[in-house]
Amino acid sequence: MAQSRVSTVADLGEFALIDRITAGLPGSPAVSVGPGDDAAVFLVNGSAVVSVDLFVEGVHFRQEWSDPFDIGRKVVAASVADLEAMGATPVALVLGMTLPRDTAQAWVDQFAAGVRAEAERARIALVGGDISQADRIVVSASVTGQTDAWSPVLRTGAKPGQLVAFCGRLGWAGAGLAALARGFRSPKAVVDAHRCPAVPYGAGRIAAQAGAGAMIDVSDGLLADLAHMARASGVTINVESDRLDVAEPVGAVAAATGRDPLDFVLTGGEDHALVATFDLGDVPEGWLVIGSVEERAADDASFVLVDHVVWQSAPPGWTHF
Amino acid sequence: MAQSRVSTVADLGEFALIDRITAGLPGSPAVSVGPGDDAAVFLVNGSAVVSVDLFVEGVHFRQEWSDPFDIGRKVVAASVADLEAMGATPVALVLGMTLPRDTAQAWVDQFAAGVRAEAERARIALVGGDISQADRIVVSASVTGQTDAWSPVLRTGAKPGQLVAFCGRLGWAGAGLAALARGFRSPKAVVDAHRCPAVPYGAGRIAAQAGAGAMIDVSDGLLADLAHMARASGVTINVESDRLDVAEPVGAVAAATGRDPLDFVLTGGEDHALVATFDLGDVPEGWLVIGSVEERAADDASFVLVDHVVWQSAPPGWTHF
Repeated sequence: MAQSRVSTVADLGEFALIDRITAGLPGSPAVSVGPGDDAAVFLVNGSAVVSVDLFVEGVHFRQEWSDPFDIGRKVVAASVADLEAMGATPVALVLGMTLPRDTAQAWVDQFAAGVRAEAERARIALVGGDISQADRIVVSASVTGQTDAWSPVLRTGAKPGQLVAFCGRLGWAGAGLAALARGFRSPKAVVDAHRCPAVPYGAGRIAAQAGAGAMIDVSDGLLADLAHMARASGVTINVESDRLDVAEPVGAVAAATGRDPLDFVLTGGEDHALVATFDLGDVPEGWLVIGSVEERAADDASFVLVDHVVWQSAPPGWTHF
Repeated sequence: MAQSRVSTVADLGEFALIDRITAGLPGSPAVSVGPGDDAAVFLVNGSAVVSVDLFVEGVHFRQEWSDPFDIGRKVVAASVADLEAMGATPVALVLGMTLPRDTAQAWVDQFAAGVRAEAERARIALVGGDISQADRIVVSASVTGQTDAWSPVLRTGAKPGQLVAFCGRLGWAGAGLAALARGFRSPKAVVDAHRCPAVPYGAGRIAAQAGAGAMIDVSDGLLADLAHMARASGVTINVESDRLDVAEPVGAVAAATGRDPLDFVLTGGEDHALVATFDLGDVPEGWLVIGSVEERAADDASFVLVDHVVWQSAPPGWTHF
């Protein structure tokens, strides 16, 4: 990536690099100590809600498909989605990052600009981090949220009789990835969705306030993540396929690649929609009902069904090994 | 590392691997949701204190010098040291980890055992994590501590007239690294110190309670870290060399490698001793006075001196680029 005349992170050095990323960072009323000390210090209202996500070059993103600004945005969006999925409000973000020595300073500047842009949208404060050299880029994003006066919404709380509803997008990022993998750069809407998901910020808290039983964010794919929820709750979840819309650009990719468009919606990962269960009458505005929670018919019954049968298709979601 | 008959993490799969690491994890009264949901949930008393550290294979550790148990211990110890350096009490740890597909399951088991052993010593609860494949091992350790009723001790609070004192070890890990780099496996005490630092758990909180002005943990080397503190506080720190003891095994490595033993004590990193400033009469038991805080003589004066002159030696501390 770096040519001989490009200024690299090795030219800059570790501390100047950190200064460059953190200079003029906006403050937050909750944060009393930001970057620059051994640790950051901030207030948490209620319980702390904490998660970490890794983003590995060549696994979670490719430099030829995503520019550094988008990668920075995606790191924040995908991480904050875990807080949303607990019904928590985002508070603070710390980043760990390994960089090859020949990474251009401009790459880091654009990555940092993407982090800041998305952090502002997600209302989370970047409060610290760590940087090391390595032969490829790995970013770890650790996020802290707060419950305020609300109980966190776990994966274990789905109860038979509840409705299953989602908020956000399904199948967009997966369709974008499929398009990129075929060498296309369009449809732009789904390619952009792969580069950075459109997380429905604030919807998790609204679901918690509405009394959601269980909630998860769709990172591995709708069916895979509903199976995680159903297994944790000891229930079966049935999705009704006629309640699922296929967005126009997702349908276009399905047509171009000869795949079932529903397959993108049901198994495409990385959109970070929120999916939750609600008692009848409790489904908040902006959430779409797509199925229901049922008793498990038998110990060996499937945890997730589509129109009451097991969905047969491409691998149901992404697994790392 | 892995041979064809060794069971690898690729055989196991992501979710089984996580189950293996988290099975039977000890609980903590503060933690209401541990591993297995989108995020962990726990109580923080006072303000939250948060830091992240990266550990990169080939940069922070080498498999031929450290076994996985020691690497697991070091990840926890070095990370918790940042909380100690704020005067905070450790609460919760989340780990991110990239692993090559051919990593032996036994490696992960031993790493996890090391994490648990050190987490128990440091009194911090492992509450979650993320795992991904990559071509080398990178671990990110995110730690959360709490201030309780005490103010965090920052790098900025050193005041002229205060004494500088430390608690822990200086030069041990650096001497161990120097021995290993020369192909030796002894003296065992310093080689072990490189493999996992002996962090003085609890000493940070005691310093905060004693009214420490500024505090930092020695990760880059005593002079380098005191310079960070002095710069942040706008002061000069003078170290008196005759107050520094050279431990016997550190002296042995110095003799064998032809280096000044004081150089290990002043510039060796990764021991994670705590160094802090105190008003006269406030230095807690177990802390050794090694110098004092002075007014800066001029805008271009050095931030750190040894016996009132600039220390001349090998590079003063480790920088990543």
